[in-house]
Amino acid sequence: MIDENTYKVTASEALAHFKDGSLTVHEYATALLARIAARDADVQAWAFLDPAHVLAEAARLDSIPIDFRGPLHGVTVAAKDIFFTKGKATTAEFAATNVGPKTKNPHDPLRTPGGSSSGSATAVRDFQAPVALATQTGGSTIRPGSFNGIYALKPTWNVISREGVKIYSVLFDPIGLYARSVDNLTLLADVLNIHDDEPAPGIFSVRGARFAVVKIMVWPKAGPGTVSALMAGVELLRKHGATVEEIELPPELDELPQWHRTWLAAEGRTSFLPEHRMAKGQLDDFLVAHVENRLGLTRAAQAKAFDSIAAARPVVDEIASRYAALLTPSDVDEAPVGTAFTGAAVFNCIWTPSKLVSMSALCASYGGYPESDNAICL
Amino acid sequence: MIDENTYKVTASEALAHFKDGSLTVHEYATALLARIAARDADVQAWAFLDPAHVLAEAARLDSIPIDFRGPLHGVTVAAKDIFFTKGKATTAEFAATNVGPKTKNPHDPLRTPGGSSSGSATAVRDFQAPVALATQTGGSTIRPGSFNGIYALKPTWNVISREGVKIYSVLFDPIGLYARSVDNLTLLADVLNIHDDEPAPGIFSVRGARFAVVKIMVWPKAGPGTVSALMAGVELLRKHGATVEEIELPPELDELPQWHRTWLAAEGRTSFLPEHRMAKGQLDDFLVAHVENRLGLTRAAQAKAFDSIAAARPVVDEIASRYAALLTPSDVDEAPVGTAFTGAAVFNCIWTPSKLVSMSALCASYGGYPESDNAICL
Repeated sequence: MIDENTYKVTASEALAHFKDGSLTVHEYATALLARIAARDADVQAWAFLDPAHVLAEAARLDSIPIDFRGPLHGVTVAAKDIFFTKGKATTAEFAATNVGPKTKNPHDPLRTPGGSSSGSATAVRDFQAPVALATQTGGSTIRPGSFNGIYALKPTWNVISREGVKIYSVLFDPIGLYARSVDNLTLLADVLNIHDDEPAPGIFSVRGARFAVVKIMVWPKAGPGTVSALMAGVELLRKHGATVEEIELPPELDELPQWHRTWLAAEGRTSFLPEHRMAKGQLDDFLVAHVENRLGLTRAAQAKAFDSIAAARPVVDEIASRYAALLTPSDVDEAPVGTAFTGAAVFNCIWTPSKLVSMSALCASYGGYPESDNAICL
Repeated sequence: MIDENTYKVTASEALAHFKDGSLTVHEYATALLARIAARDADVQAWAFLDPAHVLAEAARLDSIPIDFRGPLHGVTVAAKDIFFTKGKATTAEFAATNVGPKTKNPHDPLRTPGGSSSGSATAVRDFQAPVALATQTGGSTIRPGSFNGIYALKPTWNVISREGVKIYSVLFDPIGLYARSVDNLTLLADVLNIHDDEPAPGIFSVRGARFAVVKIMVWPKAGPGTVSALMAGVELLRKHGATVEEIELPPELDELPQWHRTWLAAEGRTSFLPEHRMAKGQLDDFLVAHVENRLGLTRAAQAKAFDSIAAARPVVDEIASRYAALLTPSDVDEAPVGTAFTGAAVFNCIWTPSKLVSMSALCASYGGYPESDNAICL
């Protein structure tokens, strides 16, 4: 079945084809590598790629009998360059700055693809890989997901092991997932054992369901693209019979972004000490400032931020429990022009700390440039 | 200056000798390797050791000019077998069970050296390494420190990066340090950038200082060895002019050990999924039970444990702020007979969660078998 569209095959489609023999892993990998070769000069999603290694590994996988194959056998996964693997998609420095890598937005090479999971998101968007691994400390999964117009899943903190992933903040760094279809995200979530306590109550119906648009504390920063896209989503839900309320978080949570910044600086002071000791001159000044505690944060201030975040969590959980889902922007506006700055995480950064543990576990984004459907938090 | 006692040289002594030329790194490593060779059959502190690699590295370090050397140049560090390094001290399986490795207590081969940092603690106690790296999820640093009679430091959570260390719980797994002298611990703490906000207020005097013995919720489990050793410590402080009060934690913290167990199970469900997927049959049943959620813990129960721990933290901080130091047992009693069971962590497990962030950062232990001075928490 190989044809000029084989590189567009999704992960679940590929698995079905491998099983019925209509496609080999080697053929699929060959098609994806050809796509990458054709597009790499424009997109530059890869920090490192060894095509010969990929093809050798694909041939080895084809030689394994079907009964001995795992649930993702032969699926190509783009791993962000902070995962301990042999093939790498680009990222900002240690996934910890807003300085973009070489990567360009496939929709418009003059705009950022977002960061820090720049390569993972563009590889999926540009059909260079069906699925990808990301992380999010501020907005590093959801923002590139939006700017590239793909499905992004930032699960609850710590439901996916971070073994072998460079640490920035152990409290704010969940692993994120990218795909071009919901069933591909489901496939990854199943392999990674991500599920709620109880199975979903039959078939979910939008009609009669209760949603909320959350105008969080930074809402005035939302640009016209974000506001109109989010409101278009609200109208769509209402047209299908849902109730959608507009809500705000209680004022005692106003400092959540500041607590996030304070705690992140505290963790950065620890996380980048090894790099600072070994090669300070090569480290971005933002990270040097963390290690040298340039903000002069006391341990008492860190403790206050940590405890304030902890106290906020049940408050947000209670609000979320009233709705089928919360809708909230995935970014300030459409992708900024230029690739040096990957965009601001102000709309994302409060969600991991304030929903650190939750029963409604998943935050999904679809939209971005140019479609801009924007984010839906579930 | 090489003689039959060179293996007893501590880290700070060795650094001074390397600097004045009276000892080479190669000579020091040779002496330690000879000590290991003489004692390994009795103690078995090592999971893996490559003497040829150690000596080659020592010779390389000797060839580096003094001005280009780092602060620990040539110091031998025993790393627990969950650190991503080339020479390894033994541990329990993934530092996550109470099943002992082959290692024996150097004081008495019939008794456990404690766990899970069994090899790190015995290597330091038995003069096979001057200092060592450990971790503590329950009592894995302080308990072996006590059973071996060495200095153990379990710093505040996350003041040392856990980059390259196998994760059990990101919330409860601080890196621990072992040495045979306080100045060696200070050396390591300085390199690792561990310090309080303000410098210590001049010279600390025990006379007039206020201490507390904390009889935590599991106090009735304390055996006669622990009680008498702790009370001997109290008498010593009083004899030197200190005030020592006996206090209990408020009853709303009674469930801290249960919250610790619940949250640990939640994290274990995530942390050991990769091993469960790849080699379930080789995994200890305790860890299999985590992944399969055999306790049937709901996400709501996990959230409650997490939030309860978070709410307990400022309460414990406030109590600790009234004293120069808190004294508390490092183990139930003297080291149990047999090496299959490494001992219970009931006296240790509440301290990392409840002092997750603190200004008084350090928990030190000195004592254990046979001296049994027991723990002092600072």
